[in-house]
Order: sequence, then C-alpha cells, then structure tokens
Amino acid sequence: MPYFDAASSAPLHPVARQALQASLDEGWADPARLYREGRRARLLLDAAREAAAEAVGCRPDELVFTSSGTRAIHSGIAGAMAGRRRVGRHLVVSAVEHSAVLHAAEGLPVTEVPVGRAGAVTPDAFDAALREDTALACLQSANHEVGTQQPVAEVAEACRAAGVPLLVDAAQSLPWGRVDGAWSLLTASAHKWGGPAGVGLLVVRKGVRFAPQGPADERESGRAAGFENIPAIVAAAASLRAVRDGAEAEAGRLRALVDRIRVRVPELIPDVEVVGDPVRRLPHLVTFSCLYVDGETVLHELDRAGFSVSSGSSCTSSTLTPSHVLRAMGVLSGGNVRVSLPVGTAEEDVDRFLDVLPGVVAGVRRRLGAPDSAEPSAEAPSLVVDALGKRCPIPVIELAKVIGNVPVGGTVTVLADDEAARLDIPAWCEMRGQEYVGERPAPRGSAYVVRRTG
Amino acid sequence: MPYFDAASSAPLHPVARQALQASLDEGWADPARLYREGRRARLLLDAAREAAAEAVGCRPDELVFTSSGTRAIHSGIAGAMAGRRRVGRHLVVSAVEHSAVLHAAEGLPVTEVPVGRAGAVTPDAFDAALREDTALACLQSANHEVGTQQPVAEVAEACRAAGVPLLVDAAQSLPWGRVDGAWSLLTASAHKWGGPAGVGLLVVRKGVRFAPQGPADERESGRAAGFENIPAIVAAAASLRAVRDGAEAEAGRLRALVDRIRVRVPELIPDVEVVGDPVRRLPHLVTFSCLYVDGETVLHELDRAGFSVSSGSSCTSSTLTPSHVLRAMGVLSGGNVRVSLPVGTAEEDVDRFLDVLPGVVAGVRRRLGAPDSAEPSAEAPSLVVDALGKRCPIPVIELAKVIGNVPVGGTVTVLADDEAARLDIPAWCEMRGQEYVGERPAPRGSAYVVRRTG
Repeated sequence: MPYFDAASSAPLHPVARQALQASLDEGWADPARLYREGRRARLLLDAAREAAAEAVGCRPDELVFTSSGTRAIHSGIAGAMAGRRRVGRHLVVSAVEHSAVLHAAEGLPVTEVPVGRAGAVTPDAFDAALREDTALACLQSANHEVGTQQPVAEVAEACRAAGVPLLVDAAQSLPWGRVDGAWSLLTASAHKWGGPAGVGLLVVRKGVRFAPQGPADERESGRAAGFENIPAIVAAAASLRAVRDGAEAEAGRLRALVDRIRVRVPELIPDVEVVGDPVRRLPHLVTFSCLYVDGETVLHELDRAGFSVSSGSSCTSSTLTPSHVLRAMGVLSGGNVRVSLPVGTAEEDVDRFLDVLPGVVAGVRRRLGAPDSAEPSAEAPSLVVDALGKRCPIPVIELAKVIGNVPVGGTVTVLADDEAARLDIPAWCEMRGQEYVGERPAPRGSAYVVRRTG
Repeated sequence: MPYFDAASSAPLHPVARQALQASLDEGWADPARLYREGRRARLLLDAAREAAAEAVGCRPDELVFTSSGTRAIHSGIAGAMAGRRRVGRHLVVSAVEHSAVLHAAEGLPVTEVPVGRAGAVTPDAFDAALREDTALACLQSANHEVGTQQPVAEVAEACRAAGVPLLVDAAQSLPWGRVDGAWSLLTASAHKWGGPAGVGLLVVRKGVRFAPQGPADERESGRAAGFENIPAIVAAAASLRAVRDGAEAEAGRLRALVDRIRVRVPELIPDVEVVGDPVRRLPHLVTFSCLYVDGETVLHELDRAGFSVSSGSSCTSSTLTPSHVLRAMGVLSGGNVRVSLPVGTAEEDVDRFLDVLPGVVAGVRRRLGAPDSAEPSAEAPSLVVDALGKRCPIPVIELAKVIGNVPVGGTVTVLADDEAARLDIPAWCEMRGQEYVGERPAPRGSAYVVRRTG
C-alpha cells in the first residue's frame, strides 16, 4: 500500500525509532537539574544539538529545538521582527510560502513577492520588495506543493546587501542537504525527514537581532518555552544524520522516478499539466493538475486503489479556496495531485501508480460528463454558459463542452460563482491554447469570457 | 539509585512506553488527510482525546493537546484574556503559582493573592481580589514546591458568582484525581504523570469565551498550532488512565511514606522546618528547610549518596533569587529540600534516605561553621554582624553564632546584601523563637535587627 505523501509527513525512520527507544530510559528527566538523571538528559540534549547543528551547518548555540516546525516559524518570525522593531514592521515573503509563514504575517504590512509560472521568485523581484522599513524577509528553500527550489543564495545576498535578515523555511529541503547562502534564520520540522512529530528546529545566526516573544521561559536559550522533549529530539537529530548519509544516492534514484512520472503522466492522460520547475526542484516531489476532475474524488479513488497522495486542489476537503501556491503560479488548481515519494520508495510502486492513474482520472471524468478531447466544430458565433451554483470542476467542463460550438474568433461566456473558476478558466485557456479575454462582474458571481482561437 | 523528584518529571510509565511504541507505526501521518494512514492517525487522536477527557472530567471537544504544560498555560491565559478583553485586562493569581503562570502575567495589571504560612490562599482573600475589570483568575490545584492543595472548589464558586473564569493549573494533582469544582479552564502536563514529554492538556469549558492568540492554525480547534504529536499523545492518555487506575491505593501508600519523612526529619535533624500544609496536600511531596546549610550543597551531597531531590532554595544554581513560593509563605528559603516520590517508590529507599540525610546536613553545617544548638550565654548588650558580600546561608549562620553573646532583651544587627537574608532572617527568628524587630536601609544592603527573647 504505497504512501506517496512524504511532504506531509514521513513514516518514522528506523534510526529515529531506535534512538527514541534508547533515549526513553535516559532522557525523561529535567536537563536543568543537577542530579545524575538531569545530567544524563543534558548530555543527550547537548549531543543532539551538536548533531543537528552539524547537519544544518551552524554553531550548536545558534540552534534551538522547538515543539514543531510551525512553532519554529511562528517564533522565528516574531522574534526577528521584534529584534528589528526600530527599523520598522514591514515583512517581505514570497507568494508561495507555507501557510504557517503567511499566517504569521497577518496583520503586518507585508509585500508578497510574486512567482513565475514555475513557482520561483526572481532575486530581482525579491530585492525590489525590500524597503527602508523592512524588518524581515522570508523565503522557503523549496516549495511544499510543487517542489520548485527558490534562489535562496541570491536572495540572501540581496538581503544582506540591504541589511535585512532572511528567514529560510527549509522544512522540505533540509533532509536533502544544507541550505547554501548567507541566510540569517532557518526553520525545519523533524517529521518531514522521518523524525518524530513534536520537534522543530529554529536557527538564529550569531549577530542577528532576536527578541523572543511570549512569556519568559529559560529553556532553549529563552527561544522555545516548555519542558524539552529529549527522546524525540535525540531521535530527530539521529534520523537527520542518517537520512543525510544516504541523501545523494537516494535523491538521484527518486529524481529518476519523479522524472518518469513527469514524462509519463502527460503521455498517459489527456489534458494534464505537470506544474513546478522541471529542473530546479526537490528530488522526490511532483505535482500535476488534470482538467475536468476534482482533486478530492481522484484522491479518494487513488486511496481505494492503495495510493496515498495529496492535493493542493480547491476541491479538497480541508479548504474550499484554491491553493494559494497554485493561484500564485497561475496554474490550474482543479484536479491537482501531489506525489511526494518517501525515502526507499520502490520502483514497482511508482510503475503501478502509473498503471492505475489513467483509469482513475478517466473514470472521474466520465462520471462528471467531461468532454473528450476530440476536435470541436462550430455552430454559433457566441454562447453563454450558466454554471452558477456549480462547483469546480463543472464550470470548466461546461466551457470545454461548448467551445467547439462557436467558430474560431467566437466567444464563450461562463457565468460562475465558484471562486476556483477565476483561476481555472484562465488556466484552461493556457493549457488548451484558447484566448482568455477577461472577467466582468455579473448579477451573481462573475462572467468569464473566452475566445476560441483554434 | 532512588529518584525523588517526580514533581519535576516522572520516569516514563510502562504503559506510556507500550502505547508509544505501538502507535509509532500507526500515528505518524497527518490526521487531516483523508487517505488510510491519515484516517488511522485521526482514529488514534480521537481515542486519546476521549480517554484524556474522561480522566479530566470534561467533554472531548473541550480538550486540546498542546506541546507542553507550559504552552497550555501560556495559550490558555492568552486565549481567555483575549476572549474577555471587553471586560478588562486585570488578572488575579495566587502568589504561589508556577512560574509559567507568573511569566504569562507579566506586563498585565495583576493582583497576587497572598498565601498563609502553609501555602494556601483563602477563598475570601481570593474573592476580594476579583474586580469589575478582572478578565481571568488563575489558581493551581496544588503547589509544586510544597504540595499544599488550594481550595479550588470554593474559589471557583466565588469566581462563578463574580462572573470571572477560573483557570486551574492542575499539573501536580491531575495524576491523583479530577479537579472538583466549577472551574472554566484547566491545564496539565503529561511528563508529570509518567507520560512522555511534549504533551500538555488545555481544557476550555463550553461557554467560556476564548480567542486563541498567535498566528492562525487549524489544528486542535485552532488552539494549539503545529503538527500533532500523535504517538506521544496516545502514550500520554494511556498512561494517565493507568496511573489513575491505581491512584487511590498508591496515594495512601505514598502518603504514609511522606508522613514518615515529615515526622522523622525534625526528630533526626535540629533546626529544620517542614513546610506546607500537613493535611491538605499532595500525597507524594514533602518539603523542608534546614537552617545553616545551602540547598545546592545538600543536593550535591545527596546526589553523591544516590538520591535525586530538588530544592526551591535561593542557593540552587539555576536562580539566585529565593523561591517565590517560599517567600510568599514567609518560610526559610535557605537549605530547602523537596522530596517528591514517583509512583512505586520503595519503602526501603525512603528509610535509606532518612538514614543518609542527617549526616549530609551535619557535614555541610560543619564545613560552613554553623553553630550547634547549645544554649547561648550573654556577653554584650548589643552587637553588629557584618555579613556584607556573604551569600546565603552565611548571614543566618553569623547571626546564630552571636545571638548568645547578647543578653535577653539585647539586639543583634546583621548587615547583609544577599537578597535571601530578607526572607531567611525573619524565618530564622520564627523558627528559633527570637523577635524579628525589622529591617532598615544601610549604606550597602540592609540592616536586619533581631532581639534576643530567650
């Protein structure tokens, strides 16, 4: 039963399990105490900090363990912003940061640096967003939904030149290697690399102004309140080291499997777009969007077939708004599937996934009454499609069904009130080579105008 | 090698270990995901929440898991205060709350309700502190340093009558039983009952206004940010249930062992005060203060003899100010020893501790040149002792050495600049039946005046 959602959470690494079990007996006491149980706990904590710092490429006293990656991001942003409050309150982030970063930015004057269609910022655009009153900039090392790597080293250089600290969310990339460049703060999360839940990393380089927020607490240099979870910390550090030991070989192997998916999916399935940068990307992650299906149904069918994958689709259960990452990239949000392979994924499992996927997508399309990809033929000069009250992917399906009924040069106007249509209709035009004319307000929802060009 | 510091952290309970290991394979995935690994994780999380809620005596949807007891306190106070921000910003706490509560109160208008010499507030005094603009009141169920139980049910009733929510820090008492009374919020910490580190409980009763603070995060009803640590949560809930199953019998057994310490220590060692309420107290915890020794040296010698205990003494390493709990009680802070017995403590270990302790205390006193308890004989009508620059317990030792050199009715003035003297000199007078006249400023430090009465 292959699990292909390592980007959400990875199964516990065998080394993490061993280290956890071994340290349950030695690491339960308070490391601030001077008796032998406390001293033993302190030794374990110190050794874990050294191992984690070595993997990150920082000094041990620059690294603290937090209770999660989310907490590391929240505390890192709050502390760095407060440390620079005399400079200002302005924050610069990429438009495709993790929601933990974007939520931490709420209520602040923030500039979101746009990304290209592959999901990356350009160093110039990032540089241009830095202002006199910018307290902090945040850029992920690689995107969690599409795998695109960001130009961190170049952006860090621009930030350094502007005197602005850069916080790098390295949650997705840290298992694969250190983050290069002159970044100021770095965050990560152990359960993304096969460590246990409950452990995040927050690194603050020496010389970076940092004022921890929230009630005072002496643990972890005052930067992470609460009793240290030492067995989990030991397991996190040990498994990071173990994952890194095999990272180069495993990255090459998984990259080849992902390339197979990137090539084969568009060959096997019509009307699919593979999104994210094809070269500058995480080795284990690939995302594609299928026209005329909803992501949740595809996920459900794949689960029934034994495959656990994720979706940034607007149609997944936890949220009804389209993924902010896909929206920022301007790619189709409907029918989105993210495959992220855990370390050790078998080649046969990927091949079996490629066997199963086309039938799953075709089945969903059939049930939704999606058009086949046959050439359209003209009937009327312009048409209006009423998709009001219909949810993604129906508006796009209705559009696709009738585009062949207008002549080249004619238009189809889609009336829709599902938020996803605003993203998916232009994305469909881009994929199908039709012209997206624009959107105008309608008595209910919006009217989206598409001109047939071929 | 007996470990007698359960109030800091308890060794992992066998049930916690089993539950943790069993759920490492099932509980690592994201419980928000719909595929089978996610559904399994969700089932474990739901079951743990039900078990923990049953132990607390609340509804499952009133309880969230946080990353620590400290975090539960910080989030609980912040959320409850924000939920009542229209009422005001005033906070009422007892003077002997855990530092996590007191730190969360910093910067707010706060009333600290004083405690008696046994460490408990009175419901009347607590009630009198409630104001029109009181947003929240906080009272621990039992004190972590001296074991005294607080009159939570009566205080909760007073708070209810005043329309003020009451947050109960139940970290020390929850393993022993539910907290009675109409409290509004409750917090606890799993590693105090033999659960793993990294799990706290925050309970918010239905109908209590609560506005979570910090960046938005959908996990745990928006009240505890970050990926859920499900194996640890499962282990926490399972071990709480297991500890509760045997709680009544074990409480009786440990209470008898603690009574033995309470009776024997003052018989075995001169100039010792057992502090905390002798009846309304935690079953497993006892604290005493020894004149003329410093806590850190006693702890070190006990550690060498194989006993791990704690101290709220001003002389312990992590802090140079006297314990705020002992200060609020007005008892001696020097030479303080806290014994908190873990579940299963062997009777022989307690007896061996009682064998070893007198020699340890006598040895430390000898090295510090403390007086023996012989009757004093008069020499001069009044004396001044210069203890400037000398650290606890030296000022008290110097006082004790010369009190016999003045006649009954005569005075000794101690010049001291160690903060602990302000607490320890009056406490010494109380213990030795001498009259504490008062304190006045001196060119350096303070002058403490003591009149010999016997």
